[in-house]
Parts: sequence; structure tokens; C-alpha cells
Amino acid sequence: MVIEDISQPSLSHSHQVIVKVEACGLCHSDLHLMNGDWKKSIPLNLPITPGHEIAGHIEEIGNSVPQQFLKKGDAVAVFGGWGCGMCTYCKGGDEQSCSYANWPGIMTNGGFAEYMVVDSYRFLAKINESDRRIQSVNGELNMLEEIAPLTDAGLTPYRAIKKVRSMLGPGKSIAIVGIGGLGYYATQYAKILGQSAKVIALDMKDEKLELAKQIGADHVLKISSSEESKSKPSKLKEEASKITNGKGVDVVIDCVGAENTIYNSLQILNKGGALVIVGLFGKQIQVPLLPLVINEYRVLGSLWGNYNELCEVIELAANHKLKHELNRFSLSDINKAVDLLKDGNIRGRAIIVP
Amino acid sequence: MVIEDISQPSLSHSHQVIVKVEACGLCHSDLHLMNGDWKKSIPLNLPITPGHEIAGHIEEIGNSVPQQFLKKGDAVAVFGGWGCGMCTYCKGGDEQSCSYANWPGIMTNGGFAEYMVVDSYRFLAKINESDRRIQSVNGELNMLEEIAPLTDAGLTPYRAIKKVRSMLGPGKSIAIVGIGGLGYYATQYAKILGQSAKVIALDMKDEKLELAKQIGADHVLKISSSEESKSKPSKLKEEASKITNGKGVDVVIDCVGAENTIYNSLQILNKGGALVIVGLFGKQIQVPLLPLVINEYRVLGSLWGNYNELCEVIELAANHKLKHELNRFSLSDINKAVDLLKDGNIRGRAIIVP
Amino acid sequence: MVIEDISQPSLSHSHQVIVKVEACGLCHSDLHLMNGDWKKSIPLNLPITPGHEIAGHIEEIGNSVPQQFLKKGDAVAVFGGWGCGMCTYCKGGDEQSCSYANWPGIMTNGGFAEYMVVDSYRFLAKINESDRRIQSVNGELNMLEEIAPLTDAGLTPYRAIKKVRSMLGPGKSIAIVGIGGLGYYATQYAKILGQSAKVIALDMKDEKLELAKQIGADHVLKISSSEESKSKPSKLKEEASKITNGKGVDVVIDCVGAENTIYNSLQILNKGGALVIVGLFGKQIQVPLLPLVINEYRVLGSLWGNYNELCEVIELAANHKLKHELNRFSLSDINKAVDLLKDGNIRGRAIIVP
Amino acid sequence: MVIEDISQPSLSHSHQVIVKVEACGLCHSDLHLMNGDWKKSIPLNLPITPGHEIAGHIEEIGNSVPQQFLKKGDAVAVFGGWGCGMCTYCKGGDEQSCSYANWPGIMTNGGFAEYMVVDSYRFLAKINESDRRIQSVNGELNMLEEIAPLTDAGLTPYRAIKKVRSMLGPGKSIAIVGIGGLGYYATQYAKILGQSAKVIALDMKDEKLELAKQIGADHVLKISSSEESKSKPSKLKEEASKITNGKGVDVVIDCVGAENTIYNSLQILNKGGALVIVGLFGKQIQVPLLPLVINEYRVLGSLWGNYNELCEVIELAANHKLKHELNRFSLSDINKAVDLLKDGNIRGRAIIVP
Repeated sequence: MVIEDISQPSLSHSHQVIVKVEACGLCHSDLHLMNGDWKKSIPLNLPITPGHEIAGHIEEIGNSVPQQFLKKGDAVAVFGGWGCGMCTYCKGGDEQSCSYANWPGIMTNGGFAEYMVVDSYRFLAKINESDRRIQSVNGELNMLEEIAPLTDAGLTPYRAIKKVRSMLGPGKSIAIVGIGGLGYYATQYAKILGQSAKVIALDMKDEKLELAKQIGADHVLKISSSEESKSKPSKLKEEASKITNGKGVDVVIDCVGAENTIYNSLQILNKGGALVIVGLFGKQIQVPLLPLVINEYRVLGSLWGNYNELCEVIELAANHKLKHELNRFSLSDINKAVDLLKDGNIRGRAIIVP
Repeated sequence: MVIEDISQPSLSHSHQVIVKVEACGLCHSDLHLMNGDWKKSIPLNLPITPGHEIAGHIEEIGNSVPQQFLKKGDAVAVFGGWGCGMCTYCKGGDEQSCSYANWPGIMTNGGFAEYMVVDSYRFLAKINESDRRIQSVNGELNMLEEIAPLTDAGLTPYRAIKKVRSMLGPGKSIAIVGIGGLGYYATQYAKILGQSAKVIALDMKDEKLELAKQIGADHVLKISSSEESKSKPSKLKEEASKITNGKGVDVVIDCVGAENTIYNSLQILNKGGALVIVGLFGKQIQVPLLPLVINEYRVLGSLWGNYNELCEVIELAANHKLKHELNRFSLSDINKAVDLLKDGNIRGRAIIVP
Repeated sequence: MVIEDISQPSLSHSHQVIVKVEACGLCHSDLHLMNGDWKKSIPLNLPITPGHEIAGHIEEIGNSVPQQFLKKGDAVAVFGGWGCGMCTYCKGGDEQSCSYANWPGIMTNGGFAEYMVVDSYRFLAKINESDRRIQSVNGELNMLEEIAPLTDAGLTPYRAIKKVRSMLGPGKSIAIVGIGGLGYYATQYAKILGQSAKVIALDMKDEKLELAKQIGADHVLKISSSEESKSKPSKLKEEASKITNGKGVDVVIDCVGAENTIYNSLQILNKGGALVIVGLFGKQIQVPLLPLVINEYRVLGSLWGNYNELCEVIELAANHKLKHELNRFSLSDINKAVDLLKDGNIRGRAIIVP
Repeated sequence: MVIEDISQPSLSHSHQVIVKVEACGLCHSDLHLMNGDWKKSIPLNLPITPGHEIAGHIEEIGNSVPQQFLKKGDAVAVFGGWGCGMCTYCKGGDEQSCSYANWPGIMTNGGFAEYMVVDSYRFLAKINESDRRIQSVNGELNMLEEIAPLTDAGLTPYRAIKKVRSMLGPGKSIAIVGIGGLGYYATQYAKILGQSAKVIALDMKDEKLELAKQIGADHVLKISSSEESKSKPSKLKEEASKITNGKGVDVVIDCVGAENTIYNSLQILNKGGALVIVGLFGKQIQVPLLPLVINEYRVLGSLWGNYNELCEVIELAANHKLKHELNRFSLSDINKAVDLLKDGNIRGRAIIVP
């Protein structure tokens, strides 16, 4: 990534807002974007300023923005699913699924910058800053720094689990695969939305499993690398069976999405169970047909989250119900952060503070 | 299959019922069973009498069976999902998903016989025979002959569509892939449960598409054989897009479950759409990951149906809301029927009349 | 109502649109409004121009309105649930439930006028006029005249039935109480969304019951006036029981909402049944507690419909799936129409054509 | 109640089981039954032995009962919703809603006795007694004593809250009205199933509110007696509004069901909110129509719970996730317990230990 000095942006119509960025999370999606993995699937207008997990203060505000909702100086999270506002998905409250989407940091300029233009005030969620009550495992972090990653890393697993929460409750179980940026939050949501379901964390690294225990996982299971795992799935299946009194896991949230994690996830699923995939590491899912049909499995993709869901995770944060594990980098160190993330050496989430 | 003369069965406990079989449907599952395809996945006690789509009259009845529900001479459909009655699935009304299942015709003796023992009266659904109002495209068929296939071929697609009916309605669309034994009923249920959704039938053969039109399909699309289809999926996608005003199909019910049909089904799916698989021809599903996640697809297996769902399809039949396409064979011609089915040369459903 | 000559309105900000009204439905809500029934419950800014079932053509368009969606001359239906766009309800797709609502014809100027200002283009649903395929029992009506009442009378019962459609299907039943402006559409939606459920129409007048049969009701039941009905509910209950094989009705949509209709509706409800109330004639519902709890009844209020639901009913109309019964009045005859409506002498819906 | 010496019961068919009663809860329903409140609504065969919250050990077992599930000496909870097993409700897993129900302690002999006949093994839920891990606020209670009230007092509010749990989550709120036998459990379930929703307890007595705080209520609100409350509902509404940031309460579980509590419950409800009624003190609910419709309120009756739900609450108890407040009486002191209950002087639940 190249850092350039550009002129401060200005408003081009009366519903826009300029936000002074205080924090912007760094995401695996940014790596996918930089690698060109999505060229064929998602329309991109390169070059752009990346960064889509943004929180900041309102610097300038268009004159059609209703003053009852927002004014200059307000702390805000930027909801990144900028939709057209008129299609079925937008009208149903899921602007992040809009077919005419224009996502900041991916399709238009985003938050790895000092200032950014938000195309409509309706993409802003107001934060009550007087409410500086958010707890942090790292100590004295700024509230907006903690909220920034909630707009994606902390939103995506929330929606994924909310989709299947009717399958959870007493006697049920949920497994989180991959305790990275998303899995760290997923583990916590599993406790909050699980209604006493057992929470099981799966990862390849001991330290990540240790972390999962600290944030509430009831059980942890170590998974092995791709080649290994296919040769001995039965051991994992057996362990999961033991934890769940012989039933298997009711819901698996796969935050990795690699061929081997999906293979493992299907191995441990209970009859009638759901596998929700939010990770994007793999190219192709392979599901054996007979078990899928006979056990009535459900395999679901889940994308990001909507505006109301964002408000719900902010509500959790404001009420001290989430732990955050953040690594702060200045804008000039962004490429260092990228390298660490690539090598899987960031615990929790990296945030860029301009 | 070998036909043997065996002694008429007798009751071994007071909840059992002996049914004189009047009709028993022949199913692709019977072929899978005879081929040994399921040896590894489903526990079998061979040799047994196959046949799991059974209707008949009560011949003898255990003395603990409540007379208010059933008595000698009553016409009945045999619900085939014999469960333990005590596990979570049974207690939740889905005995067909019981982990301790003992399915007649698959795990215990079934209906390709003159008489069969039904292990508990609770697996019988009473038919009001005075109600001989069922219409048939073949003319004067016996009512029980028409009901027999409803216990599986006519039940499985019903449950599959009922699962996703909240996704249907005005402006939505549903595609049925494969207009064979299951697809013939699926097309009709799509009209009934679709709440004005467009119904699109897909098959490789023109005559099956013609049949689909006769039973209500709004549109038909011809699909090609495995190798061909992978090389030109874009044509099918384009046709589906045209029918659905550019959106794609909201729900696909795949009654075949072969690699190529599933590949095609995913090609035509709308954002947020569901693929429900009931067919079992293939070994493995392959789903490209990025579209699955980004479009929030749902891939669902669906198995058979429960007792209440069986009553609902019988209700439809009794109210003239279903057409039936049946081919009657005597018990001694059963191997002829098997051969015709193997070669895909049976339109609708074959039934064996002992 | 007083008709005044006022100057043609003009745009006050760049998201507004001026619509030339072609048709505006007359609704019982207009009577409630004129009677002052709602003074305490709904904030009103009187005097205003009433009229909230509006269809017309775009006369003038603000310069921030995206041209891809709307342009001058387009035929449009006006979605009346003008919300703030930022609260939980608006963000969830239910702007008609907004706490800061500003409904045209009720809280701000509406459609009994030649021109009206629509506060944002996001309240317009585009109509494909080339698609003049709508059928009418009155013959050659203009398409926009048929669509106008769909924005309220034709939308409210749609949402009410959609809410409970998972309770309908083969062997189930739904009753529509009151075959007036709303009930006329409700009866049709019951057939479309009912998935083969029996549709039963209830009214005090024979001619309304006759009308219900013409649009698809499977059964009709005459109800008597308030005093009478309370003295002999058992007869109605008995008739409903007979139609439903002793079970009672699974869903009742009460389009009147008077004390006696609600009393009757509860009498005929099946165990586990739902009573959805959209009519507003009464002041107070009385529900006997023991039956409510023991039978797990659900009593639901339902208000209007959302934007996507409006698009769905327009879709039904465009595909010839709705019948319309309309009475056209010129703007100068509006008080005549009001009097007829008050006395219950309008079959179907009155529309004002400026 | 009169205590009689009767001969020990014997099995009359092979699916029956004789249970040696270890504990049987005393319930407000027993008072209603003794008062004759339900004569008209529920078919009774008097005189009978009351008592429907039963746990004990298997004393004798019919010879058709599958040994894999149950054997002599097993600890069991008796599921009280004895249904026919064949109707739609039973087949759907809700035997407690059976139209041909035969409830022990109400329609047939129950658990205020040393031994009772259970009509079928399918009404028994096995308890793992080696699992004596249940915590108790009263110290060293026997496990079966704690489980007995879970079959009704501890089951009814569980089902009520489970019905509406999709309305709960971050930023939402749930109020429990009446912290008696049911409300004590309801408050705990609200925490478990509420997914971080705020839990608000309402009662007329300070000591009950104190108790509610001890078991996890986030807020408590004192309500006043019938006459008083109707004259100043605005104060309660104001307090509820303050707790919920001006929104009102999303779900109210009314465990009393008196005219005034229902009146209060409706006052504090948020737009789109649900009032679930499980208490049976009143005769008639009065709901103002306009708010019901405009706010899309849902008023739901909820009855008891089903077998799977019973297993779920037992699971919670076995995993130390429930507190119990029990008052033990010998069978000879049963009338003393009845008097205390009548006067509202039992904290938590009374259990009779034969």
C-alpha cells in the first residue's frame, strides 16, 4: 500500500457527511482485495483507499441531514454496506446485500485516511461517547478504536450466529472454528446468544485456544493442518461426540472457510445441524451428499451484517459485554500490520489510527 | 428380487397391527438398496422384504390399540418413519429422523408382500375410503393405489418445499429439477405452497417437461447431460434470469441430486436463495465458496416427511388437489418394474399391487 | 371536506418529487380522521389535505434523485408510511411503523388534490405502465386507478395474512370477517397465500357474501348484529365447526374490529389459532382469559404494510391475480362518496379521480 | 383435601409404569381445581387424587416398555401432558395440547400419593441421579424434590419465554410480572434465554422484588393493587420507559393474569411488543383496540410445556443453571400448605413429600 498526501475531501451533495477517521480496522478482506482474489466476483474501481472498519467524528455535514439524528462533532461508526436504498434487499433492511452496492474501502474510498466522505448520513450509527465504559483486555483504549472493528469483524459473526440462534439453548452446542479476528468475537457471541448452549472453540494453535477459554469457551479442540486432518477425522469426531453426549455439534460457525476446516466442521455436526460459513479462505466446498440429505444438514453462507445488527453489537460493547483484543498501528506502519496479518501473527484485530 | 411363499405374519405384541397390502410404490431408494449403495451409511438387516410406500386395510389389530382411532377393516396409509418414540426427534414430531429408526422395507420387512406387520398403530394414518374422490390422469384407479406413493415420493418433496415456503410468494420463483417420481409431485406442491411464485420445471427430456406443463409448471427449461452442462452453464443461467426478471430463482428443489444438476441449480440461484436437495444420485456436492458466502445461499438436505406432513398430502389428495401418474404392476412383475425404473422409463410412479 | 384552489406545490429539497395524482382511494381511516376519533392517539397537524391511497405520474423531480430509479413522467404508487429512515423500525424495513412518522393525508398533505409533494423518492414504487394487463370486474379502468387502493386497503390485509401464512396449508382454514374495502382483498389473498387452506367469508349482508363467493371464498357464514350475536354465538361456532371438520378456524382476519365481530372471531377459533385484527371500529377488545391461555390463542394487531409488501401486491395486480371493485368519483363529488361510505353503501373501494 | 388409605395400584396394560412418588409440587392450579373454577372449561372426573408436578422412582414396569429407555429403580420426572398420541398436536410434539388429554392430578389420579400409575412409559423423562449436582438456595435438598416443580411451575414460563425469544437480544428488554412460583423461574429463564436483554421484575411486594434481584433481575418495579394501579398507570409507564431508554418493554410475561396486571403489562409494552400470559387469576382481558393495532402488539396465551421442553429445563437444573426455592411439606400437612399458598405466603414453590 502506498500512502499519499491528497487534498481533504469535500461534500458533493446535501446528504453526505465527512468523517474524521479515528480508527480503522485491518481485515483479511483487505488482503484478499490486495491479492486480487475477488477481481472476478466483485466489481472494483482501482486504485482506491482501502479500509472498511471505520469509526470517527463528524467533521462536516450536508445541509439536508436531519439535525435530530446527527450534527458536527458527533462520534459515529460507519456502516459499510452502502446500498442503493431502493432494491428489495435495501428496502428489507439488508443494505449490505444490495445488488448495486458501493462499499467504502472496497469499491470506493475508505478509511485508511484522515478524512473520508460518507455518501449518506443513513450509513452512520451514532455513538454516545459520554458512555466511555467499554472494557478492554489491553487497558486504556479509546472507545472509537474498540468500535471500529465491530463494523465488520465484530459484525459478521454476530449475524452468522443470530441466523441460527433458534437452534441453540439448553442441551445444545455451538462450535467456533478459527479463533482469529472473527472467531474472537464469535466465541463471545456464542455465549451471549447461545442461551446456555455449550461453546466449543477449534483452532490449530494452542495460544488461540487459550485465548478462547479466557473469553468464555466451555471446551476447546485442537485441529490439525489440512493433510493431517483428512487422514484422521475420526479423532476429532470422537472428541466432539464426547463433549456433546454423543450427539455432535448443533451449530458450527466456520470463520476460516478452508477446505480442511469445512471438512472437519461437517464431521462433527449433529443430525439436523447447521454449518454457517463466514470465512473465505477456500475456493470450493465439498459436501458428501448422503449425510447431507439423511441428516438434513443446513449449509449457510453469511455475509457481514445490517445496520440494526451493527447497533446491537455497539450496544453490547457499550454495556461492557464484549472483550476486545486490539493492536494499534499508525497509518505509516500499515504495511507492517499487513505483513503480520498475512503470517497469522496478529492476536485479535489490528487497527490503524491515522 | 426373489418372490417367496412365506407364512402369514402374526402379532407379537399388543400395539401391533397386521395390514393387508393393497398397493406398494416402487422407489429409487429400492434400487439404491438393491445396489448396496447405502451399506456403509444405513444399518441394514438383510435379507428383508423391501417396499416402503404402503397402503392397505387392517387385517388384525393388537388389543391395546385404542378403538377410537383404528379398527379391523379400516383403510390406512403406513407411515414409514418408524422411530423409537422417546428421542428428541421423535418427541419433536419427526420420527422419520429418529436415531434408532427401524424403517419397514429397508431395515425390517416391508410392503412388497400380501401382508405386513406394522410395529405400532401410531405408524398408521387412517383413510376415509367413503371419500373416493381422488382424480387420476389414468382414470379409474383405486384410492389406496394413489395414496401408497404419497407415503414417500409424494411426501419427500412436500416437506422439502414446506421448509422454504416462507421464501415464496408474489414475485418469487421456485424451480423443480428432475420431473420423475418426486419431481412430478414437487411441481404440484410448488403451485400449492408457492403462493403465486413462478414455477419452473427443469429436465433433460422433452416429454417430462411436457408433463410438467400439464400439471401446472409456468415455465420449463431443458437441461443437458453432465459433461455438456458444465461447458455451457451460462445459457441456462441466462434463461432463468430472463424468466425471473434478472433476479434468478429463489428456491431450487433438486429431485435428482447428481453432480451436474446441483451444479446447474447453483448457477440459477438468486441472492439469498435456497437449494433444497432430496435426490441422492450423486456422491458429493461441490459449491464454490465465494458466491455461497457473498450471496448468503442456503444449501439444505431434506429427508422424507413426518406423520403430520403425510396427513397433509393425503388431505390434498382427498380434496382432488393432486394429479397422480401411476403404473400398476403385479407382485410377480416386480422385477420388470425394477428394470424399467433403472432405465428411467417410468413416467410418474410404479406401484406394485399384490 | 372543503375543496380549495391552492397554488401548485414546489420542491423544497433535492430528494423530493411532485406527483400528479391520477387516483386516490377513499378509506374508513379518512372517516375516523374527520370524526376526530384519533386525536388522542395520533399526532395531527390540521387542517391538511386528506387522501393516502395515491397513484399518479411524476411531474417534477429533485436533482438528487438517482435517475436509474425514477424520472419525470414515470407512473408511481405512493408508499404512505413515510418514516424517519434512521430508527430501528425504518432500518428494519418497516417505515410504516416509524415512531417519527409523517404520513401523507393524515399528518401532512395527501392525495385528494391534483398535485402533491412526496418528501423523498424512496417513498415511490415505480409502475410499469406498458404492462396494462390488470383485469377489472368493472371493465376498462385505468391501471393507476386500480393500483391506488393497493397502497392501503389492498396492502393492510396482505401484511396481516402474510404474518400468519406459516399457520396455513392443506387441512387448515382461514376466515375473513367483513367483506368491505379490506375484506374484499383479504379474501383474495387468503386464496393466494393460503396454500390450499379453506377460505371462509363472514359478513352481515348477503350481497357481500355473494361477492366473497365470486372472488373465491370456499364457504360463507352470515353473522348478525351486535346484540343478537352475543345471545347466540353457539350457532356460528357450530357452523364453523362443521366446515372445518370439528376443529374450528385456524386464522381469523378481522377487518371490522368491532366488539361483536371480535367476540365472534374468538368463538370460532381452533386451538392454537390466531386472530389478526386490522379493523378499527371498536374501542376495546374483551378476551376470556382461560380459553386464551389453555388454547394458546394469539391475538395480533396488524398495521398497514411495508414497501416490499406494497411491491408484492402490485406484482399480483400486474399479473392479473387480483380482482378490483372500484367506484370512481370526481374530486368535486368527494363528499358524496364520504356519505356513501359512512352508510356502508360502497361495494369494494371508492376512488377519487382529480 | 381428604387423605385416604387405598390399596397400592397395579398395572392394567403392558405400557404402563408404577412410580413411587418422591416429591410432588403444589400449584395454584390445584387451588383453581379445588375451587371448582374450571368446571365448565375442563372435563373433570371427580373425585381424584390431585398433584401434577411429580418426580419419583420406577416401582413396577409393564413388559412392553423398551428396556433401553427405562427399567425398575430409575429416577424419573412425570411429564403431565398425557395426550392421545394420534392427533395433530400429539404428532407435532405438543401432547400437552391434545384435545383428548387425560392429565394426571386433574383428570385422572395424580401425585399426592405414595404410588401412582403412569399410563405410558412415553410420559416419563429419565433423570441421571448419579448427577446429584443441583444447587439449592435451601441447602441439602434431594434432587427429585428440585425436579418435581420443573414439570409445571418450572416448565410453563420456559415455554412462554422460548416462544418469543427471537424478539430478545442486545438492546431489548423483558419484564416478568409476579415473582411467585412461576415468576421465580421465569426471571431465571429471562436471563438464560434473553441473550443479554434487560430483565425487569414486577411485583406488589418488596420481598419478592428482593428475591428477583438475587436470581438475576437487572431492574425491579413495584406495582400497586388493582384499584390503585388503574388510577396511576402513567408512573409505571414512565419508570419502564426510563429503564428502556424511552422504548418500552419488548416482551412481558404475565405470571399472574389478573385484570390489573394485564392492564399494567399493556401500558409498558414497546411498539411491536408481545404480552405472553401464563397466569390465570382473571376472567377477562381488556385490550384497547387502537394501540393494539397501531403498535402491532401480540397477545399470546401459553400453556404448560412439551416433553422436549421438560428435558431442557431438567438439563438446566442438572448443569447448576437454576436456583430453586422450595418449601417441603409431608403429605399429612398438605392442607396447611394449601392455606399458605392461598394467602400468598409461600416463597417459591411448595412440594409435598409422601
